[in-house]
Amino acid sequence: MDIIRVAVDAMGGDHAPEAPVRGAIEAVTENEQLRIILLGDEPAIRSIIGTLHYPEDRVTVQHCTERIEMAEPPVAAIQKKKDSSIVRGMMMLRRGEADAFVSAGSTGAVLVGGQVLVGRIRGVERPPLGALMPTEKGMSLLIDCGANVDARPAWLLQFAEMGSIYVEHALGIPHPTVGILNIGAEEEKGNALVKETIPLLKECGSINFIGSVEARDIPAGAADVIVTDAFSGNIVMKMYEGTATTIYRIAKNGLKKSVPGMLGGLLAKGTLKKALKDFDASKYGGAPLLGLKGLVVKAHGSSQDTEFRIAVNQCGIFYRENINGLIKERMEAESAKIRALKQNGN
Amino acid sequence: MDIIRVAVDAMGGDHAPEAPVRGAIEAVTENEQLRIILLGDEPAIRSIIGTLHYPEDRVTVQHCTERIEMAEPPVAAIQKKKDSSIVRGMMMLRRGEADAFVSAGSTGAVLVGGQVLVGRIRGVERPPLGALMPTEKGMSLLIDCGANVDARPAWLLQFAEMGSIYVEHALGIPHPTVGILNIGAEEEKGNALVKETIPLLKECGSINFIGSVEARDIPAGAADVIVTDAFSGNIVMKMYEGTATTIYRIAKNGLKKSVPGMLGGLLAKGTLKKALKDFDASKYGGAPLLGLKGLVVKAHGSSQDTEFRIAVNQCGIFYRENINGLIKERMEAESAKIRALKQNGN
Repeated sequence: MDIIRVAVDAMGGDHAPEAPVRGAIEAVTENEQLRIILLGDEPAIRSIIGTLHYPEDRVTVQHCTERIEMAEPPVAAIQKKKDSSIVRGMMMLRRGEADAFVSAGSTGAVLVGGQVLVGRIRGVERPPLGALMPTEKGMSLLIDCGANVDARPAWLLQFAEMGSIYVEHALGIPHPTVGILNIGAEEEKGNALVKETIPLLKECGSINFIGSVEARDIPAGAADVIVTDAFSGNIVMKMYEGTATTIYRIAKNGLKKSVPGMLGGLLAKGTLKKALKDFDASKYGGAPLLGLKGLVVKAHGSSQDTEFRIAVNQCGIFYRENINGLIKERMEAESAKIRALKQNGN
Repeated sequence: MDIIRVAVDAMGGDHAPEAPVRGAIEAVTENEQLRIILLGDEPAIRSIIGTLHYPEDRVTVQHCTERIEMAEPPVAAIQKKKDSSIVRGMMMLRRGEADAFVSAGSTGAVLVGGQVLVGRIRGVERPPLGALMPTEKGMSLLIDCGANVDARPAWLLQFAEMGSIYVEHALGIPHPTVGILNIGAEEEKGNALVKETIPLLKECGSINFIGSVEARDIPAGAADVIVTDAFSGNIVMKMYEGTATTIYRIAKNGLKKSVPGMLGGLLAKGTLKKALKDFDASKYGGAPLLGLKGLVVKAHGSSQDTEFRIAVNQCGIFYRENINGLIKERMEAESAKIRALKQNGN
C-alpha cells in the first residue's frame, strides 16, 4: 500500500489552528494510507493534538515562525515569508517531501505559491482552481473559479481537459459532460472569449462537450464540468452562496410572521435547514489547483473540521487515481499532435 | 396633465398575446395619464380586449402582419421584418408617435432595434440594459445585464451615471450608492476591465461610488446601482433565478420527507412560497434600455399580466420624471468637461 503524504497548513482559515488540525487528525485516523504533516505554530498545534487520540506514527508537526495574512499582497508575501506555513508546504511539494498540500489561507498566496514554487506540469498554460458545486443531481466542477481572471481560449480548453480527468477519476463519473458558461444556448451568443473557445472545445476529441450552459441551469446540474474564466466563475460561486443565505434568512423570517406559519416553522425549520444544507458548497471540502507538479488544495476560508477532513481525504483519492499522471499524458498527447500538425505543414 | 403614449408589443413573450394585452389594459385603466397602442395581430388582440372593460378612447390597436421569432438572428430580423410589432414600435418612438415601447420579444431584436431605429442620446457610447433585482433591503439596479458583453471602461462609467439617474428619479432613492461587481474588495482584485474602470468611477463627481461589490453581497442589497458588463450581469441574474428555483424545489421536497416536516410543510408552504415570491425578479416588470432617444423597456419572456402592467406603469414614471432629459444634461456636461480639458492642453 502506497503511503500518501499530505502537508496541512495549520494556520490558514477563519477557524485556524483548531479546524485544520482537528480535520487532518480525523482524516489520518480513519484512513491508514495517509500520513500528515502539520505546518504552523508548534505549541498551538501540540496543545490541540495533545487532547486527541490519533496514530502518532503518521502525524508530524513542523514549526513555522511566520504567517501570511489574508490581506498581504501575495507575490511579496511568498517571496519574503520563507518560514510561513504556505511557503513551507509548497516547498515540501517541490522537493518531493509531500504529495499534497491543503491550505485555507490567502487564496492569492496559494495561487502564486503553486505556480512559482511547485511549478506547472509541462505543457500546462495556466493552472485553474476547480471547485465542486452541489447541484440537484449531485455535483459539478466549476473550473476556473479563482485563478485566471483574464483568460484565453487555449487555457479554457485545457481547463476542460483537466477538469474532465478530475471528475472522471476523482469522482468516478465516466465520460463527464463539459459545458461552457454562456449567456444563451445559441451559437452567436457570448463574449469574445466564449465565442473563440467554443470551436476549440468542439474539436477536442478527449472531452464530452455538450455546448453552452446558462447560469440559470447550473444549480439543477446542467453539466459535470463547467468551464469558464475565474472572474465569471467567482460570480457563479458567490451568487450561489449569497442567494442561498439570503433565501434561508427570508424564508425563516417569513415562516415566523403568521400563526400557521409560525407553527409550521417550528416543525419544519430543521427539515428546511437540512435540505438547504445539502446544497451547501462547503461540504465538498476544497478546490484543487489543477496542472501543478504536486497537488495543492485550497480550502474555503470558513472551513470547519469536516471540510478539512474531506479536503485531506480528497488528496488521497487524487493521488491514488493518479490524476496528475493522466494530466501529464494528456498534455504530452496534445503537444505531440501540435508537433505532427506542424511537420505536416499545417 | 401630460399624456404618455406607450406602444406595447402584443406578440412578444411566452404568454402573448394574452399577457401583454391584458397587462397593458390594466395599466391604462388604473392610470389616466396613459394612452396605449397595442401592436400585433389585430383579430387576436380584438378578441382579448373584446371581453374587457377599459377606457376605449385611450387604447388603439395597430395591426402588424409580421412577427420576429425568438431564434431569429436579430440584425437580419430588424432589417427584413418592417411590419413586425418590434420594428413598428421602435419606428413610433423614432418618429415621436410614442413616448415608450414595451416588448417581451427577442432580446436581441429589441437591443438592435433600439440602437439602430430609435438611436442613442448624443454622447452615449452604448445603451445598457438595467434590470431591477429584488434584495433584502428593497432593490438594486443591475446595469448592464444584457446589452454589451465585451464592454469598455468608459462605457461602464456611463452605465453608472445613467443607472444613478434612473434609480434616483424613477425609484426615488436620493444619492444612490454605486458599486462595481468584482471578485473581492481589495484594490488589486479584478479583471482588466474592472481595474481600469475603478479609477474612472472614483473620479466621477456625479455618482456616489462605494467601491467593489462581491456577488455574494448582492442579494442582501450591497448597493443601489451595480455596474458590470452584460456577460457578468447575465450570470448574476441567471444564478439568482436558478438558485432560488432549485432551493424552493429542494426545500419543498425536504419538507415532505419526515412526518413533522410534512405537517410543518403543509402549514408553512404558503408562507415559504410567499417569502420566496418577494424575492422574485419578475415582479419588477421590465428592464429599461437606457441612453436611447425614446424609452424602450424589455420585459422578461415569462412575463404575465402583472409584469406587463408594471412595465407599462414604469414608462409613465420614466417619462414624468424626465429621466431622458436628465441623462441628456449629464452627457452634455460630460462632453463640455472633456472639451474644457482639451482646451487647457490636458
